[in-house]
Amino acid sequence: MKILIVGGVAGGASAAARLRRLSEKDEIIMFEKGEYISFANCGLPYYVGEVIQSRNKLLVQTVEGMGTRFNLDIRNWTEIVGIDREAKTVTARKVATGEEYTESYDKLILSPGASPIKPRIEGIEEANNVYTLRNIPDTDRIKEKVDLEKPEKAVVIGGGFIGLEIAENLRERGVDVTIVDMSSQVMAPIDFEMAQIVHTHLREKGVQLLLEENVSAILDGGKKVRLDSGIELESDMILLAIGVMPESTIAKEAGLEVGVKGAIKVNEHLQTSDPSIYAVGDVIEVKDYIHGTDTYIPLAWPANRQGRLVADHIHGKEAVYHGTLGTSIAKVFDLSVASTGSNEKLLKRLGVPYEVVHVTPNSHAGYYPGAAQLNLKLIFDKETGRIYGAQAVGKEGVDKRIDVIATAIKGNMTVLDLPDIEIAYAPPYSSAKDPVNMAGYAATNIMEGMAETVQWHEIDEIVANGGYLLDVRSPGEVAKGAIKGSVNIPIDELRGRLDEIPQDKDLYVTCQVGMRGYLAARILEGNGISVKNLDGGYHLYSIVYR
Amino acid sequence: MKILIVGGVAGGASAAARLRRLSEKDEIIMFEKGEYISFANCGLPYYVGEVIQSRNKLLVQTVEGMGTRFNLDIRNWTEIVGIDREAKTVTARKVATGEEYTESYDKLILSPGASPIKPRIEGIEEANNVYTLRNIPDTDRIKEKVDLEKPEKAVVIGGGFIGLEIAENLRERGVDVTIVDMSSQVMAPIDFEMAQIVHTHLREKGVQLLLEENVSAILDGGKKVRLDSGIELESDMILLAIGVMPESTIAKEAGLEVGVKGAIKVNEHLQTSDPSIYAVGDVIEVKDYIHGTDTYIPLAWPANRQGRLVADHIHGKEAVYHGTLGTSIAKVFDLSVASTGSNEKLLKRLGVPYEVVHVTPNSHAGYYPGAAQLNLKLIFDKETGRIYGAQAVGKEGVDKRIDVIATAIKGNMTVLDLPDIEIAYAPPYSSAKDPVNMAGYAATNIMEGMAETVQWHEIDEIVANGGYLLDVRSPGEVAKGAIKGSVNIPIDELRGRLDEIPQDKDLYVTCQVGMRGYLAARILEGNGISVKNLDGGYHLYSIVYR
Ligand SMILES: Cc1cc2nc3c(=O)[nH]c(=O)nc-3n(C[C@H](O)[C@H](O)[C@H](O)COP(=O)(O)OP(=O)(O)OC[C@H]3O[C@@H](n4cnc5c(N)ncnc54)[C@H](O)[C@@H]3O)c2cc1C
Ligand SMILES: Cc1cc2nc3c(=O)[nH]c(=O)nc-3n(C[C@H](O)[C@H](O)[C@H](O)COP(=O)(O)OP(=O)(O)OC[C@H]3O[C@@H](n4cnc5c(N)ncnc54)[C@H](O)[C@@H]3O)c2cc1C
Ligand SMILES: CC(C)(COP(=O)(O)OP(=O)(O)OC[C@H]1O[C@@H](n2cnc3c(N)ncnc32)[C@H](O)[C@@H]1OP(=O)(O)O)[C@@H](O)C(=O)NCCC(=O)NCCS
Ligand SMILES: CC(C)(COP(=O)(O)OP(=O)(O)OC[C@H]1O[C@@H](n2cnc3c(N)ncnc32)[C@H](O)[C@@H]1OP(=O)(O)O)[C@@H](O)C(=O)NCCC(=O)NCCS
Ligand SMILES: [Ca+2]
Ligand SMILES: [Ca+2]
Repeated sequence: MKILIVGGVAGGASAAARLRRLSEKDEIIMFEKGEYISFANCGLPYYVGEVIQSRNKLLVQTVEGMGTRFNLDIRNWTEIVGIDREAKTVTARKVATGEEYTESYDKLILSPGASPIKPRIEGIEEANNVYTLRNIPDTDRIKEKVDLEKPEKAVVIGGGFIGLEIAENLRERGVDVTIVDMSSQVMAPIDFEMAQIVHTHLREKGVQLLLEENVSAILDGGKKVRLDSGIELESDMILLAIGVMPESTIAKEAGLEVGVKGAIKVNEHLQTSDPSIYAVGDVIEVKDYIHGTDTYIPLAWPANRQGRLVADHIHGKEAVYHGTLGTSIAKVFDLSVASTGSNEKLLKRLGVPYEVVHVTPNSHAGYYPGAAQLNLKLIFDKETGRIYGAQAVGKEGVDKRIDVIATAIKGNMTVLDLPDIEIAYAPPYSSAKDPVNMAGYAATNIMEGMAETVQWHEIDEIVANGGYLLDVRSPGEVAKGAIKGSVNIPIDELRGRLDEIPQDKDLYVTCQVGMRGYLAARILEGNGISVKNLDGGYHLYSIVYR
Repeated sequence: MKILIVGGVAGGASAAARLRRLSEKDEIIMFEKGEYISFANCGLPYYVGEVIQSRNKLLVQTVEGMGTRFNLDIRNWTEIVGIDREAKTVTARKVATGEEYTESYDKLILSPGASPIKPRIEGIEEANNVYTLRNIPDTDRIKEKVDLEKPEKAVVIGGGFIGLEIAENLRERGVDVTIVDMSSQVMAPIDFEMAQIVHTHLREKGVQLLLEENVSAILDGGKKVRLDSGIELESDMILLAIGVMPESTIAKEAGLEVGVKGAIKVNEHLQTSDPSIYAVGDVIEVKDYIHGTDTYIPLAWPANRQGRLVADHIHGKEAVYHGTLGTSIAKVFDLSVASTGSNEKLLKRLGVPYEVVHVTPNSHAGYYPGAAQLNLKLIFDKETGRIYGAQAVGKEGVDKRIDVIATAIKGNMTVLDLPDIEIAYAPPYSSAKDPVNMAGYAATNIMEGMAETVQWHEIDEIVANGGYLLDVRSPGEVAKGAIKGSVNIPIDELRGRLDEIPQDKDLYVTCQVGMRGYLAARILEGNGISVKNLDGGYHLYSIVYR
């Protein structure tokens, strides 16, 4: 069998390696338009920041090394510019000379990835200091700029994970960074209130954050960035990081079906509308694992997984890709920010009813040094307990909890099963009730009618409309800040002061993170008084409204 | 309802808190024979080592604080010395005065825990420097000894996790520590080869380790410890940490059924043979989650979980405890050592056939600073893919991988599902193929007949009996150490040197960790040559035999 692969990095190289492990006989040719194959895309920002010091480390495999090891015909500096599906050939163009030739295939695998979106902004063409970051040459250019010109001010356009990683690494190099994002938050996979923790942290780290701002023009050859609001930012360099678009031009030209964002449509075996042609990675549309809807999630895990599955399917194995959960994570200075599954924004858009709990336990036993508050949000279906998604922000243990919940989702577990996840406990790692268990308990209580909650975005209006909000924290805590209109009765005095609770009002309760509020609600319920607890307590409320 | 609880720490306090959240009306009395309730047992060793500096931090709840918050009648310094099941009463004895009284119950919850085993060793009664560690007074005694007498030499008898934690913390205080264990390894939950990594690390940290040694006598009032082998160790202090026995005396006297190690038998609702009496925590026998057999697993997660379940069951909820996986972890100096489910030792004892893979990937992307080798072992059923257990040892990311696999087990996932676990990937946290995915791939290959392996303990005999072992590492690697009798053909030369492979011998292949060996096996298979790969490679082999 003769197999051609377009693109020699995450999806392409994974497919190639697995193909060879499945057969010594196949002829495998891998085309890569750039110099390098199999490089560490995800490490690029950290090389700019000199966290990764050796450029060589970015090169996971070399053309020669991988070619020899896997007996592959790897043709770098060679771009595939056309596919002839009738003839089952591709047209390859040598980048250096422009010389073209055709190559035939039995199976064709497309893994050309995605490219940074370059919007048409006034003055962008004239500017000589606008950068995007996708590959090694991009990285070299950015690093050279920083090394040689020691820029003082950078404007990062786009607050997605790549934008934030660039911002952090420029900051590490002493550059003053401003992030501009059209949305009201950075990190689209998480919801607004969780992103607020990130916003505060970014500002603490000296990053200027301009949200709900749109770039209207780039002035003076890139020396200034003008926003819709009229603000003008000085910029020694401008980083464009507003997202990526699938590299689907040759696929479209060959008449392959495309979908969301122009990404190539594939079936569950990752075959395009032409069954001899497979496509994987950042170039394809995927099924949302939770809802089965079409979506676009360009990440490294799916690309690697899909690359291997395609090799298996070509060799007759029953290889099925079940869709993408979108589990993702980014380090943002001292924070880790992660999520899996659906967020509230998506569920609202899809019109799917859901329930939310926020828990804020320690990352490990509070009495053991280094414990840090973990902000964990769980989104689920109140009727069935189905887990829709989870988000976590904190300094430690974020990745673990999101991975555990992602695993639970893949295992068809519901929130009722989360308390039963028997985690590894010793003080440096967790608590005897892990944060995941805790989120499961809180969610279970809602399902079983033991707890009713309201959310941070509902409480101000509730109080404004005459709702009675009891704050059960200590007076000392209340003195440091409380929700306007709340009345303080410390939890430990509540049983003795029940007569102070009004009989004629809608009742709500709050505390610092939601735990004492929940207990207070149980105490009141036990005395025949119905009450709703503010989920996440004053902690979450103040994250948003401080 | 009137509910009595015996024991005021992990299981007892958890039950009490949940009981109150379920009902404001119940009369709840919690008896604790010591001074303190709800303390951090698991933190005790770290207070000795001054990693936890404030003694107060060990006290998660106080008698007064918890009593007020949960409206509990907490009676510390009060031991329950008898149960009258007919009368539904217990006899309580005030520790200070010896005064006794009875208290009636509707439901009785036993959570008295376990106590350190004190073997009859010659001279142990005469020694005044023998310590066990279970509670705050024990900790105070040990810490005082270290603070005031600055002992130079300590002998820790028993290499379980408590023994190792004590050893580490004494070492941190500058004490010369010798660990003596009867078995050939420390940390019984993991298998021998994994424990060898721990052994080496302990020795690197200056701990003397005497395995397969039994203490025959304590001499000179504790100044010396004599072993069966004749070795005599000097000892300024002796720590006994050879395990615990359930505190089931009053249960037995009351005629409640007991099982393994004398632990109380309970049904899936945690009811003892008397349905009005529940028991939880270190005092009960549990079902092995994997095999359904009776076993004894005294850990904090189960105690906390069971405490809450009992409260639920008392209040009419459908509360079921499904058995204990035994997920556990310990920090051993710079290493984390964790496991879940069954180990090989247990499977052998039960006569259950199983397959093993060892993978040794980086804890996170190798090019990002701080990555450390993760030794991950997966044990599974080759026919069904059922996961029996996993073990991990390394400097980073150990807890996460074991928690993910523990979750997969609870979600009834097989090794075939592990490659599909979509983890959160960015370079500081993982690789695009996570170690859990990698273990899943390796196991899947075995199930699908893509790979056949032999284990570290089989290869020497195989070679001795004429098996041909090909080492496909580079000559440089081989020069640093290789398996006796192996023949070196570097992987990248293999395709060109197939004629050197003998036709008349049983063929085996190895490399550093098993990956190149696997690829070599695929190359040979692709050329019609059948071969088995040494699982874990020279790395694992040398861990054991160095
Ligand atoms: C800076 C950065 C940081 C990232 N960080 C993370 C992270 O932390 N976590 C994460 O999950 N993901 C991350 N990603 C995304 C991840 O790298 C991609 O999802 C993944 O690499 C996609 O794999 P792929 O094979 O589809 O495309 P790529 O890995 O991009 O490979 C595509 C290759 O195809 C080549 N190519 C394109 N067209 C042609 C053609 N016509 N002919 C020949 N060759 C062609 C390209 O030159 C390219 O080398 C990051 C990406 C970037 C750029
Ligand atoms: C040093 C140490 C470190 C540990 N580290 C870990 C770890 O890292 N991870 C982990 O999972 N587990 C660890 N454990 C084990 C964990 O602490 C126990 O599994 C857990 O505490 C068991 O809960 P329990 O409620 O059954 O018993 P306990 O928490 O021990 O509580 C029992 C209480 O009952 C009291 N009591 C006993 N008999 C009577 C009576 N007749 N009347 C009145 N009161 C009585 C006792 O005084 C005791 O306070 C550790 C234990 C120790 C000692
Ligand atoms: C590295 C790369 C070429 C893939 O190569 P690969 O050989 O498929 O992947 P790995 O090196 O991780 O090896 C995985 C293989 O080794 C096997 N393996 C791993 N450890 C093993 C062990 N201890 N024993 C036996 N087999 C083992 C696995 O089973 C798997 O083989 P399989 O797919 O046939 O089951 C490709 O992933 C790549 O180019 N990566 C860099 C680019 C990238 O991913 N960018 C995005 C993130 S920065
Ligand atoms: C602390 C101790 C008394 C247990 O008290 P507890 O109140 O049951 O447990 P926690 O303080 O963890 O609180 C858990 C409760 O808060 C709820 N909760 C937690 N976070 C919440 C939030 N943000 N919003 C709403 N509810 C929340 C949980 O749902 C749970 O309530 P539930 O059981 O009714 O569902 C007991 O575990 C103990 O004594 N521990 C120390 C001893 C020990 O465990 N030793 C061994 C390990 S060192
Ligand atoms: Ca609600
Ligand atoms: Ca085998």
